Amino acid sequence: MGSHRFNADVYGRRIAAATSATAEAGLAGLLITPGYDLRYLLGSRAQTFERLTALVLPVAGDPTVVVPRMELASLKQSAASDLGLAVRDWVDGDDPYHLAAQALGGAPAATAVTDSMPALHLLPLADVLGVVPVLATGVLRGLRMVKDASEIDALRKAGAAIDRVHSRVPDFLLPGRTEADVAADIAEAIVAEGHSEVAFVIVGSGPHGADPHHEYSDRELRVGDVVVVDIGGAYQPGYHSDSTRTYSIGEASPEVAQQYSVLQRAQRAAVDAVRPGVTAEQVDAAARSVLAEAGLGDYFVHRTGHGIGLSVHEEPYIVAGNDLPLQAGMAFSVEPGIYFPGRWGARIEDIVVVSEDGALPLNNRPHDLIVVPI
Amino acid sequence: MGSHRFNADVYGRRIAAATSATAEAGLAGLLITPGYDLRYLLGSRAQTFERLTALVLPVAGDPTVVVPRMELASLKQSAASDLGLAVRDWVDGDDPYHLAAQALGGAPAATAVTDSMPALHLLPLADVLGVVPVLATGVLRGLRMVKDASEIDALRKAGAAIDRVHSRVPDFLLPGRTEADVAADIAEAIVAEGHSEVAFVIVGSGPHGADPHHEYSDRELRVGDVVVVDIGGAYQPGYHSDSTRTYSIGEASPEVAQQYSVLQRAQRAAVDAVRPGVTAEQVDAAARSVLAEAGLGDYFVHRTGHGIGLSVHEEPYIVAGNDLPLQAGMAFSVEPGIYFPGRWGARIEDIVVVSEDGALPLNNRPHDLIVVPI
Repeated sequence: MGSHRFNADVYGRRIAAATSATAEAGLAGLLITPGYDLRYLLGSRAQTFERLTALVLPVAGDPTVVVPRMELASLKQSAASDLGLAVRDWVDGDDPYHLAAQALGGAPAATAVTDSMPALHLLPLADVLGVVPVLATGVLRGLRMVKDASEIDALRKAGAAIDRVHSRVPDFLLPGRTEADVAADIAEAIVAEGHSEVAFVIVGSGPHGADPHHEYSDRELRVGDVVVVDIGGAYQPGYHSDSTRTYSIGEASPEVAQQYSVLQRAQRAAVDAVRPGVTAEQVDAAARSVLAEAGLGDYFVHRTGHGIGLSVHEEPYIVAGNDLPLQAGMAFSVEPGIYFPGRWGARIEDIVVVSEDGALPLNNRPHDLIVVPI
Repeated sequence: MGSHRFNADVYGRRIAAATSATAEAGLAGLLITPGYDLRYLLGSRAQTFERLTALVLPVAGDPTVVVPRMELASLKQSAASDLGLAVRDWVDGDDPYHLAAQALGGAPAATAVTDSMPALHLLPLADVLGVVPVLATGVLRGLRMVKDASEIDALRKAGAAIDRVHSRVPDFLLPGRTEADVAADIAEAIVAEGHSEVAFVIVGSGPHGADPHHEYSDRELRVGDVVVVDIGGAYQPGYHSDSTRTYSIGEASPEVAQQYSVLQRAQRAAVDAVRPGVTAEQVDAAARSVLAEAGLGDYFVHRTGHGIGLSVHEEPYIVAGNDLPLQAGMAFSVEPGIYFPGRWGARIEDIVVVSEDGALPLNNRPHDLIVVPI
């Protein structure tokens, strides 16, 4: 509840920009229920489901918050008061959808809704509005992809915190312990190093490292295992870390070392390709071509990266087919991997922010295969 | 993953009943994305958001699961395999909404969707179906309200577990400790006594007990405090406990003791009123009239109860205006309270199941004001 979290300037700018983008899209307004978009626009972590809470942003008119009377106090946990937004509270028996429609201006109007709005609210709202809404995703994409200074600051702190966790990981990787044992230590370290919550923990040892969707299991670590450790958490006010390093329990074989060195070059090539104007798919291709030239192209089975912010996965996606030009302020992962089914896998992942000078990495641990002495 | 959790008979019966109810409502099919309804119909705890996972139940045709290929393995964590349901998996680039529409029979058709379906999926689905869906809530209400034997068994175990927590609460309520300290002990005990997770913990001491929406705070407990403790958790496979007892730190004043005894009579009157055919509002009125006759009617500011099951709050709601006749197998809370703003409050809450012989309580701790010796 400090001035940082609910800086009225920051949220006021975001609401104004969202309203402009709505007008440019030819829509009459935006209607945002609890979820990431509400958190972005109002700093609110409301999670009400049964009763409608909504930020209503008409193109012609003032922003209004529609909220159940019993949730009025929770508005203080958002920028609504500091911004002096109009509030329309309601009690059981009232029709909150009419309140929302009034705040939009009354007449049937093309309205965009946040992608997480549940059918429970969307269907009665469509009824009252007289037209089926459209998704706000396209309207808000341009805003949410380009991070402002406060967001980059939060992402930077999250990145430094997950780097501190990775620096402790070798202590956890002892032969005979299970992936689950290691994951529990990492989860504790994620919080101890300053995150407000654990987002995910992947510990893929030996053959499990070859499955990019593996989380962790009761498999015991052995000498000679290559171990993929992909971890992240949320950092106040809710921005995420996400970083992968690959560890070897004891010295790696020459084959592993050689193939890992190609992966390391691929990751660096992708980071080096990042600058404003380059497309997302060009960054993907930069990593992919290094691996392909070394004959490892078929072992890189996923996209090179994903945007990150209030959610762990968001736009821009760094993937073939995405011709979106990068802009300064975009933040995303660069995380090529190689996967040899039934044997081992490796991945290197940093979060980077696009700056005028190229990629600014938010993770700064060494990229080498990290040998855990035995 | 035991035979209990995915008993194909149980889930098969539920799917058949849901399909019949859909036909009776004049609809062509049901479309259920992750959430409580999917858990009820398929035992699946899937939480996928970005990519469509859906159980499609056409009135004329076979049940089908639409699922992202990368989530195929997670279908084993549901009854889908045991029931031999048709599976249509898809990969990025496919249109999962067309798959869902095909599974419904193809032609534009009136379809009901689960109330938690996000706009992200509902809007493109409405586009492909050619008609805006309706909420499935009405269709599934009759099924989900009346618990089957396996559900009552889970609710009974949850009730016994929360009773064990309440038996330990007096040890936590020491003068000088904060409500938050007590809440932390209770949260730990909720899990230690067999719940899989904590659902909520309310510790309302002294004046905080007069606010039914209070959770807990840094207020320190004092001798003479009346303390409302309202707690619950989820018990495998996901059914909830919810029970309130009121404690007094040291002997209560004669005024508190006298008013509490009226509350105790009110709670018993409501439980005694429960039997098949009685309406929900009659049960509410039974509690309310005891309090009103003693001049305490204005201090009982909420409904008498709510249904409980996979969600903590669900139908039937025990409230004025709800003329739903109770049926054997319905499960709900009976929880009148009295609230004296700025001073103290009290509430007594048990979960009961409707049987042919009346209410079967699932909580069995004494209803008296529990005096914690000092």
